[in-house]
Amino acid sequence: MLEQMGRAAKQASWQISVLSSAEKNRALLAIADRLDAQSETILRANALDMADARQNGLSEALLDRLLLTPARLSAIAQDVRQVALLTDPVGQVIDGRLLDNGLKLERRRVPLGVVGVIYEARPNVTVDVASLCLKTGNAVILRGGKETHRTNSATVGVIQDALAACNLPKEAVQAIDNPDRALVAELLRLDQYVDMLIPRGGAALHKLCREQSTIPVITGGIGVCHIYADETIDFAQALKVIENAKIQRPSACNSLETLLVHQGIAPEFLAALSRHMHSVGVRLHADERAMPYLADGPATCVAVEEANYHDEWLSLDLNVRVVTGFDQAVEHIRIYGTQHSDAILTQSLSTAERFVREVDSSAVYVNASTRFTDGGQFGLGAEVAVSTQKLHARGPMGLEALTTYKWIGYGDNLVRG
Amino acid sequence: MLEQMGRAAKQASWQISVLSSAEKNRALLAIADRLDAQSETILRANALDMADARQNGLSEALLDRLLLTPARLSAIAQDVRQVALLTDPVGQVIDGRLLDNGLKLERRRVPLGVVGVIYEARPNVTVDVASLCLKTGNAVILRGGKETHRTNSATVGVIQDALAACNLPKEAVQAIDNPDRALVAELLRLDQYVDMLIPRGGAALHKLCREQSTIPVITGGIGVCHIYADETIDFAQALKVIENAKIQRPSACNSLETLLVHQGIAPEFLAALSRHMHSVGVRLHADERAMPYLADGPATCVAVEEANYHDEWLSLDLNVRVVTGFDQAVEHIRIYGTQHSDAILTQSLSTAERFVREVDSSAVYVNASTRFTDGGQFGLGAEVAVSTQKLHARGPMGLEALTTYKWIGYGDNLVRG
Repeated sequence: MLEQMGRAAKQASWQISVLSSAEKNRALLAIADRLDAQSETILRANALDMADARQNGLSEALLDRLLLTPARLSAIAQDVRQVALLTDPVGQVIDGRLLDNGLKLERRRVPLGVVGVIYEARPNVTVDVASLCLKTGNAVILRGGKETHRTNSATVGVIQDALAACNLPKEAVQAIDNPDRALVAELLRLDQYVDMLIPRGGAALHKLCREQSTIPVITGGIGVCHIYADETIDFAQALKVIENAKIQRPSACNSLETLLVHQGIAPEFLAALSRHMHSVGVRLHADERAMPYLADGPATCVAVEEANYHDEWLSLDLNVRVVTGFDQAVEHIRIYGTQHSDAILTQSLSTAERFVREVDSSAVYVNASTRFTDGGQFGLGAEVAVSTQKLHARGPMGLEALTTYKWIGYGDNLVRG
Repeated sequence: MLEQMGRAAKQASWQISVLSSAEKNRALLAIADRLDAQSETILRANALDMADARQNGLSEALLDRLLLTPARLSAIAQDVRQVALLTDPVGQVIDGRLLDNGLKLERRRVPLGVVGVIYEARPNVTVDVASLCLKTGNAVILRGGKETHRTNSATVGVIQDALAACNLPKEAVQAIDNPDRALVAELLRLDQYVDMLIPRGGAALHKLCREQSTIPVITGGIGVCHIYADETIDFAQALKVIENAKIQRPSACNSLETLLVHQGIAPEFLAALSRHMHSVGVRLHADERAMPYLADGPATCVAVEEANYHDEWLSLDLNVRVVTGFDQAVEHIRIYGTQHSDAILTQSLSTAERFVREVDSSAVYVNASTRFTDGGQFGLGAEVAVSTQKLHARGPMGLEALTTYKWIGYGDNLVRG
């Protein structure tokens, strides 16, 4: 079954890969309009998914992620109109020159072809990913979570109707709506048709894809993020950044999990930290060198376990470790980090630059919150995923990450000497 | 055992990732000098490998690939000096700007970390790959063919001595010199330490890596390349390009395997083709529509089988198929091509541009030989491999393909609003 879907996606990709930006934008606006016009169909499907989810005892947090309201759906349609406004990277000439051998060579940005996306409960991802893929001339095969399969089917149906109304192949956006898990394994081996696979979900999904996929995979999304506060910091300023990184949205992958503090400022700074974290409701997990300064402070404080350094809290919990200095801080980040987002707080320019060079993360910050790692914040206009691997794309992936390039050589019946 | 090697490589990569270009170039020149000075050690090891290879009945062609001579080794050392002269991509700022949220953001090019390379008999690859990785601040784990394991060990020993003499970690260049095949499987799963894997070998090796590796893989090197001759060509010019693409080096992956000819010129052009191919010793494999015009020509001609369209001849054999026109030519390339290098011969600008847009290959040529697909020809200065996949790097991979980037955000104790 997927074989056929893959072949159809590849065929469709050839058609949409050569569309002009204007043609693609017209289709995006048609999709947005139809999402508005057909909102009742989608909301009805969502109501059925929600009823099942409640019956299956999903948590309130998950139910909220699953829920579509008229306002949410309208915002989703509005996002599609925003994508239409973005600059189309396809066709851009990256570089080029006339070579000594006479060949006029250029590298031109082109669509990837067919993108596969595996994701979990959030129904907005369906429209997001479909619109970003269409904008970049790619076909897409979507595999959403089984909790939202009715919502996703209805949404993809609306998108396909809009494509057909624009005389575009509806196979450019397809969803695997059979919840059978075996189909994921099948999708992972569809390398003949699918050019890139993006898993958007937890660590287990990423591991599955890395181990079983024969298609190139972009993994990421797991963020054990650090801030290192060196001995030159201004306490009040530092606490402001730490608070933002920890509490602005604790469930986000770019939130702070471990604070590393230079031993020279530990006594005074940790006392201030305990007061501040108490005031914003953060629980501390202290290493043995931090504990003496935190045990009697107002913030809740327990002993950190080594395993805590490896995992995302995704909650109002924060590991605190006192380090002997810069080298131990960098060593800690190398051992426990996930190469997502890490920051230094310092007033020393040379220490800042050393941190930038030595910490090998997708995003490295100097005197700024780790929370900035986000396509919207970075001005990319959209975000397909956040990559923590090094090939192809790193950090927030915008439209450019959905393209590749081809080399084009023009000659006058030119032969190699 | 590989676990330890991987960990040491990662450690070494941190050290060499922050070296200046001048420091890396000094190490490269030290390697070149030591390859010259210690040439006897390497040649002695190569003589032992050659003796074994002869005893094992390797073909003359393979023996020649395996053989090092004083002149060849000296040329290899000279290549290292050339790498030292190339521009170092590491540290380059790709783009950057001051965002509205106050963040000063830049994308800086950085080394990948640890690169794994699996290759076959050619001992020059050892030095090539080691020098390109060192130039870009990457550590490398090399796995050469078992036929050259003594040569490779001796070569890597010399490289490591040179690194140590420059006070650099010798674990930056390591070779797996145990010929046990199980170690390849182990290498493929070393994702904790190895950031990118490059297999340089046949289709079976690429398939093995795609299926079993948990490390991102760059596959490529298989080239079923096409030329489409449309109805507007100048016969003499076209034959010149076809000859070059087929015979200049038939064993290369960018050589021509299948010629597609527009039906409108088939009678006259195929007669001329037969005469020309006969004069340069090329055997033709004709489809049923081409056969009537080729059967009685001077060039040897047999009926093509469908399987021939799928495989590389790598010899003086050429498939010839008559197509109804542009669309059938593109369809043929989509079905049978390997997205390596494909060319059109035409005098029509609009047909040329359609071909460039619709043929989805790493390199697409207009009125030029497919033989140009090569890092040296493209002016990249060096070539690590030729990628036919779409992620990360496509076509000839130069130094840039051995790098990734990191996002760097500078703030003045900046928080996300």
